[in-house]
Amino acid sequence: MIDLNADLGEGFGPWRLGDDLALLSIVTSANVACGFHAGDPLIMRRTCAGAVERGVTIGAQVSYRDLAGFGRREMDVAPDELTAEVLYQLAALDGIARAEGGRVRYVKPHGALYNRIVRDPVQAEAVAAAVRAYDPALPMLTLPGSVLHQVSGVTVVNEGFADRAYNPDGTLVSRREPGAVIEDEHRVAARATRMAVDGTVEAVDGTEVRVDPRSICVHGDTPGAVALARAVRTMLEHADIRLGPFA
Amino acid sequence: MIDLNADLGEGFGPWRLGDDLALLSIVTSANVACGFHAGDPLIMRRTCAGAVERGVTIGAQVSYRDLAGFGRREMDVAPDELTAEVLYQLAALDGIARAEGGRVRYVKPHGALYNRIVRDPVQAEAVAAAVRAYDPALPMLTLPGSVLHQVSGVTVVNEGFADRAYNPDGTLVSRREPGAVIEDEHRVAARATRMAVDGTVEAVDGTEVRVDPRSICVHGDTPGAVALARAVRTMLEHADIRLGPFA
Amino acid sequence: MIDLNADLGEGFGPWRLGDDLALLSIVTSANVACGFHAGDPLIMRRTCAGAVERGVTIGAQVSYRDLAGFGRREMDVAPDELTAEVLYQLAALDGIARAEGGRVRYVKPHGALYNRIVRDPVQAEAVAAAVRAYDPALPMLTLPGSVLHQVSGVTVVNEGFADRAYNPDGTLVSRREPGAVIEDEHRVAARATRMAVDGTVEAVDGTEVRVDPRSICVHGDTPGAVALARAVRTMLEHADIRLGPFA
Amino acid sequence: MIDLNADLGEGFGPWRLGDDLALLSIVTSANVACGFHAGDPLIMRRTCAGAVERGVTIGAQVSYRDLAGFGRREMDVAPDELTAEVLYQLAALDGIARAEGGRVRYVKPHGALYNRIVRDPVQAEAVAAAVRAYDPALPMLTLPGSVLHQVSGVTVVNEGFADRAYNPDGTLVSRREPGAVIEDEHRVAARATRMAVDGTVEAVDGTEVRVDPRSICVHGDTPGAVALARAVRTMLEHADIRLGPFA
Repeated sequence: MIDLNADLGEGFGPWRLGDDLALLSIVTSANVACGFHAGDPLIMRRTCAGAVERGVTIGAQVSYRDLAGFGRREMDVAPDELTAEVLYQLAALDGIARAEGGRVRYVKPHGALYNRIVRDPVQAEAVAAAVRAYDPALPMLTLPGSVLHQVSGVTVVNEGFADRAYNPDGTLVSRREPGAVIEDEHRVAARATRMAVDGTVEAVDGTEVRVDPRSICVHGDTPGAVALARAVRTMLEHADIRLGPFA
Repeated sequence: MIDLNADLGEGFGPWRLGDDLALLSIVTSANVACGFHAGDPLIMRRTCAGAVERGVTIGAQVSYRDLAGFGRREMDVAPDELTAEVLYQLAALDGIARAEGGRVRYVKPHGALYNRIVRDPVQAEAVAAAVRAYDPALPMLTLPGSVLHQVSGVTVVNEGFADRAYNPDGTLVSRREPGAVIEDEHRVAARATRMAVDGTVEAVDGTEVRVDPRSICVHGDTPGAVALARAVRTMLEHADIRLGPFA
Repeated sequence: MIDLNADLGEGFGPWRLGDDLALLSIVTSANVACGFHAGDPLIMRRTCAGAVERGVTIGAQVSYRDLAGFGRREMDVAPDELTAEVLYQLAALDGIARAEGGRVRYVKPHGALYNRIVRDPVQAEAVAAAVRAYDPALPMLTLPGSVLHQVSGVTVVNEGFADRAYNPDGTLVSRREPGAVIEDEHRVAARATRMAVDGTVEAVDGTEVRVDPRSICVHGDTPGAVALARAVRTMLEHADIRLGPFA
Repeated sequence: MIDLNADLGEGFGPWRLGDDLALLSIVTSANVACGFHAGDPLIMRRTCAGAVERGVTIGAQVSYRDLAGFGRREMDVAPDELTAEVLYQLAALDGIARAEGGRVRYVKPHGALYNRIVRDPVQAEAVAAAVRAYDPALPMLTLPGSVLHQVSGVTVVNEGFADRAYNPDGTLVSRREPGAVIEDEHRVAARATRMAVDGTVEAVDGTEVRVDPRSICVHGDTPGAVALARAVRTMLEHADIRLGPFA
């Protein structure tokens, strides 16, 4: 069984990003923005209501405090501050999810914070400390090679990226490099299916990389995102892979 | 038995307001700012830790989203948005309080929101809806004549203001009027004691107003706030009034 | 000669609102958001560059500080604070416009601030004080019946709204009322043309209201906004009305 | 002749930092916060008014957009975005300064941005691009060894730090190291005087470092800051060094 996750509720005030309703009918897990890079409280509430209604599992997409930069810029936040900020976001979303009959069942850091804690043990521990303080049973999504796997007291779950190019060492090719994002629907769906079936993906140099994902991420904020996500789901289903939340 | 409450944790980033540690050794309830008018997550966490350590009860001081105006400006927030914003703040603080071994035991709206829901039934219902959605057992502090008393499904507790002048109808004299804030320590302490013993206060026209407070507010953000709060506590104790949290 | 104005640059960070490029080829004046309700510095700069390139006049769309509410909520900002906030936004945009070879040539308050200073002499004076302090020659757009006409030391220019219903007294029907916004392209274009030719518009009760606009506003943030603006421009041109900036 | 500069106007909303009035009677140049790390428009206006009244030169203390972190955290802002953000702040402050009869006469980046552009040529060029776009004649304060000296089309002025320890290579000892900040009044004043007379300072290893400052910075946000600044000024005057703005 494999999980399909996507970022949702990434609007703010008058602004929207992506087609949340369409994605909610495709994915099995929703990474809901918690207000620091996107997501005001009303959008958070509506996104949670939509997820609960469709049986989609809710995760907290926690971020650096950076609305103008959409959480995509690394920040040297002090560990105790980062822990408090993650705890704040996680608790806020969980309270809102509970008001809608759901609850937060996992944590997926967003953007620059996601990438930072793959390799920075200090910030990884700071984020994990927030999760432990709130609910040590909540799993966190990360890459197979992440230093988060070395942090104790927190459950870590491997994630694969269907539409991102991989380096031979299992890290993602930076978005600044050409070819970092794969846009061809069929190719993305095929990569997702291979990840789900074999646990592997082909790196940019042609070598095979082991990713063993329990969840596969599809992006929601690009044009064609919905079609891409649907193509991934359809091919997975044709390969007789059961889709369901990991958390 | 009477409760003494004060606003705490009203700093943000590099800034501080008031002497939180001193006040925590005087009051029995701490209205902790939740990030919308003041209070970043780390300050919230430290304030909760300090309150738990000293056995002070934690309340959520929810506010309009207005950092620049410190929540002191009325805003025509739509009801569903206001509900979501209050729910967000309440849940965030409760999660942080729990991480420190405490929990949020009451709600006290801050500044302009406090005053608005005394007379605006729509916003009063919107705030109450958030409290009901999160935990219907949480009491809310308000004035005796507040329309919040007419809102169903929420527990409302009367509050008195030791250092504020009262109109004959039981509302507070606006801060824009001269004499709205009483600064004389002895007078403030005497008014608090009369409130606690008789349930009354003398209005600006000399008439007696019934306030029947279960909790008395002392302000924390003025020079001399700590001395004033201590004077109030001392006189209450000399009058053999037991001090303790209402929630 | 008549001016056509629209709100532009109303994105923030990763978010966009409306099709700025298309509108820049239709309007003669661009109300550029200044960062308080929308518009980050880079968006401001690109919008100014686009306006300069197409010969569109730049105006400062100043607002309350309310990103989450998109400046659509009235706020009781103290006059000296409001003056400083408007001055800040105006100067920031003008500096950016100058860096692109243009400059700010008029001021149009946004959203709730626009409506508030039509009837509130204190906030009207506070906004005008900022304009006078920065450049007393800058004209301000407002409604014919606005109290801004009574404020001294500032040039006020009448504006008409092509797609908004009017009350018999010349104020706009509130957006909360049904029929407040007119969506039929032909009807909007015909109203704009009548405003430009006769200086009048038909109110909701069928009476004729005098508006004498020197500039007509078309909205940019609705679906169909571009088509509507183009229809207005086309009909004005067919009626042999010359289009050109008022400032 | 030597200049004494300090950071001023670093409050926000209800919060204040440092004793601005006292410092304005000591320094010859005021680095005024522009709203991104501190400084709301009203505080900016009052700070400018105070500076103009006392004949203190106004500089723009531009920063990363990071109110919660007080601009002390490095951010990977894209160059075009950073240029636009600096231009925005610079123009906003200059407009406010002009409304008070002054004008911005130099630029001093704040906190993490100051340190970053000492060694990062991309961000250094991005900040310089904003200054060139606004007014190429405005000088920028930086360290002697800064890469900003290699950026063309901008005037760079050397600055010394009276109360900071120096590495042998002329960089400042990080605030995270013990002894990074010197608190002894007499020692700080003596270092400032030696900098002004000989152009040198003693590094942590006892070697002599050439700094040749045209301006000396005294910090304003620490307890004892005013006394320290006064001690520096007094000793400089006793050494017959003329004090005056560099810009």
